Amino acid sequence: MNVDQNRLREDIERTAEFGRIESEEGRGRTVPAASEANGRAREYLVERLEDAGLEVRVDAVGNVVGRWTPESADPDAKPVAAGSHLDSVPAGGIFDGPLGTYGALEAVRTMREAGAEPDRPIAVVCFTEEEGGRFGSGMLGSSVAAGERSVEEALALEDDDGVSLERALEEIGFRGEGRVNAAGWDAWLELHIEQSERLETVGVPVGIVTDITGITHCDVTVRGEANHAGATPMRDRTDALAAASEFVLDVERAAKEVVVGKSETAVGTVGSHSVEPNATNVVPGRVECGVDVRDVEYGSMNEIVSRARSSLARLEAERGVETELTREFDVEPVSMAGRCRDAARGAAEAAGITTMAMHSGAAHDTMQVARVTDAGLLFAPSRDGYSHTPKEWTDWEDCATATQVLAGGMARLAGTTFSDTTR
Amino acid sequence: MNVDQNRLREDIERTAEFGRIESEEGRGRTVPAASEANGRAREYLVERLEDAGLEVRVDAVGNVVGRWTPESADPDAKPVAAGSHLDSVPAGGIFDGPLGTYGALEAVRTMREAGAEPDRPIAVVCFTEEEGGRFGSGMLGSSVAAGERSVEEALALEDDDGVSLERALEEIGFRGEGRVNAAGWDAWLELHIEQSERLETVGVPVGIVTDITGITHCDVTVRGEANHAGATPMRDRTDALAAASEFVLDVERAAKEVVVGKSETAVGTVGSHSVEPNATNVVPGRVECGVDVRDVEYGSMNEIVSRARSSLARLEAERGVETELTREFDVEPVSMAGRCRDAARGAAEAAGITTMAMHSGAAHDTMQVARVTDAGLLFAPSRDGYSHTPKEWTDWEDCATATQVLAGGMARLAGTTFSDTTR
Repeated sequence: MNVDQNRLREDIERTAEFGRIESEEGRGRTVPAASEANGRAREYLVERLEDAGLEVRVDAVGNVVGRWTPESADPDAKPVAAGSHLDSVPAGGIFDGPLGTYGALEAVRTMREAGAEPDRPIAVVCFTEEEGGRFGSGMLGSSVAAGERSVEEALALEDDDGVSLERALEEIGFRGEGRVNAAGWDAWLELHIEQSERLETVGVPVGIVTDITGITHCDVTVRGEANHAGATPMRDRTDALAAASEFVLDVERAAKEVVVGKSETAVGTVGSHSVEPNATNVVPGRVECGVDVRDVEYGSMNEIVSRARSSLARLEAERGVETELTREFDVEPVSMAGRCRDAARGAAEAAGITTMAMHSGAAHDTMQVARVTDAGLLFAPSRDGYSHTPKEWTDWEDCATATQVLAGGMARLAGTTFSDTTR
Repeated sequence: MNVDQNRLREDIERTAEFGRIESEEGRGRTVPAASEANGRAREYLVERLEDAGLEVRVDAVGNVVGRWTPESADPDAKPVAAGSHLDSVPAGGIFDGPLGTYGALEAVRTMREAGAEPDRPIAVVCFTEEEGGRFGSGMLGSSVAAGERSVEEALALEDDDGVSLERALEEIGFRGEGRVNAAGWDAWLELHIEQSERLETVGVPVGIVTDITGITHCDVTVRGEANHAGATPMRDRTDALAAASEFVLDVERAAKEVVVGKSETAVGTVGSHSVEPNATNVVPGRVECGVDVRDVEYGSMNEIVSRARSSLARLEAERGVETELTREFDVEPVSMAGRCRDAARGAAEAAGITTMAMHSGAAHDTMQVARVTDAGLLFAPSRDGYSHTPKEWTDWEDCATATQVLAGGMARLAGTTFSDTTR
């Protein structure tokens, strides 16, 4: 029994209409969490969950769960859950989130049609604000479901216009009750687009994630002295941009050296750089940098941050700048559960689908869920590695193939195999 | 006969009221060219010129000239001119421009009161838009007066709101007729604040400029590939910011090496730096840099630009980025006329005022005037070197001392000495 590629495609394409933007680069959408577009996308999801016979519940922070309790299952058994999110970054793509949400629903529809008899209930989940563009730093709904953040704390978060998550959810009719508790799930699977080009490069349609890297974000300030670029001799300058430029190269070098010597998955990036006063004829007085450090080994991340601090200390001594580094966001790496990886790999093998073990350098809701229950993460190929842009693309056949593995994995975790060998 | 410090101060302080801004850092003003604030500052100037018995003329681009034709002078002789400008950068200081404008007027008032008998008429000049913040790249009125730019070209320039210089001048009532012709002046002197701290450091109240550095502005683009900072391995990156950081350091190194080996007045600055997409978690895809290169030797400027080009070629080869460098603004250095410097130095010596020879790293209207007649430039000390900020400050006594040298210099250029030994 195969998943229905057209049905999956229709759900993703219908979802792509909400918040749709015009772009020459492809199909794009702008769907901030709890926006009007997100509300309509959620309404469509609820309709589709109910059409498939699932019982829908919305929790206090807007997480949506559709539950299938088959007759074969113990209704009190912990469910197997799967899903993703429906919000997007501004001018994002149509697969990031919707593929995993509708992939999970399609998995349930396929299991039901195949007459599968799971021992456990199955939950299809859509988390609130995975991207973090409106109310905060991302993985918002899943952090509440994992107990990392309280409902009250989440509801009080405000966007740039001072609108709270609570008010925004009320406005779209998705301020529900209670709290979805991920610790109450027996296991979790999420299907997501890869967002890099490793699968495409080796020609493998499904990735099974071993580890999700930890993430550290550091805010760095380098203060020099703004001065007239013509009237200030070279020897009298304290150029914040020249100092920050050394810092950028030191972070790059630190990450590259860690890759060679310690952990080849380590990355270090200075992604943002804001210069003041930022005029051609003024020696820069201040630079703010945003640093992103990730790895599957927390020790490697700490080493890169430590080298970044040493770089700043050196620049203070050598260039007379003042510097500050704040490690304002820090999440440790998480490993995926062996039984979740095994379930997916077993399902893929049974269906004759090649898979590849890989790490995830991007954060996902699975990162939160993995703190409280066994979790797994599957990747579908991203054309040219693009994501967070209308250029984001995954072939419909790849969407279906990955969903097939997701469905088989969910079934196995729920104690059944349905007829996945017929593919 | 001394200049009247209180009268000079009153004119500068009254001018500081137009476009005044509140600031804890000092007295600031925002006076874009041909703005309402600039119109009121000009009206006050015209009133003060007429009060002093000068005949006022406004040319087609708004340059204001107040002319004194003493009985002692041949009315057909080429005048000796002096002045500066009244516009400011946003949140600029109160001395940059007004000191030179009112210093020239105070010089005429002092000469008249001293019964000086110049052989030539004297012209007090206020040029339109020296700063370049509203209609273009600066020295606008003086470039027309020097014949570098036509009246029509200047009047057609538009600000960011699409308002032409012509319309803006008409609105404030300063769209006059004809063209002030700097080539028709026998000699020119401008008094300006130094904008660096060399005079303050050595404790000398007046600088006599030998050369004004040339200025090159280069627009540089570095294109790499924007990518997910987590999902893109270090080896697969084409990080535009890392490449641009090497470029910043290469420009700094090139300028420092030219200072040591060739010309100690050379400077090279990367003052602006705009990163796209400029998000902590995205590998930078594009950086735009603004480069400022200056020296009193044009050859040194060319050497720094040439090394900047070599740096970009190296980065293309080593990092796979694409780069572009456009030398979009280029003015060669100019030397001040010996007779103008001598006149100022002679006047200072006669008045017992210490002076110091120095170059100017900042551009001034004098740069344009020097192309068509003998020109000189005098500096008054800037506290801590600040300019283009409300922190800009020159002690009133220093303003008066520098104006005394300006007055004496103007008198000598006009064939008289008045009683400057009485100081």
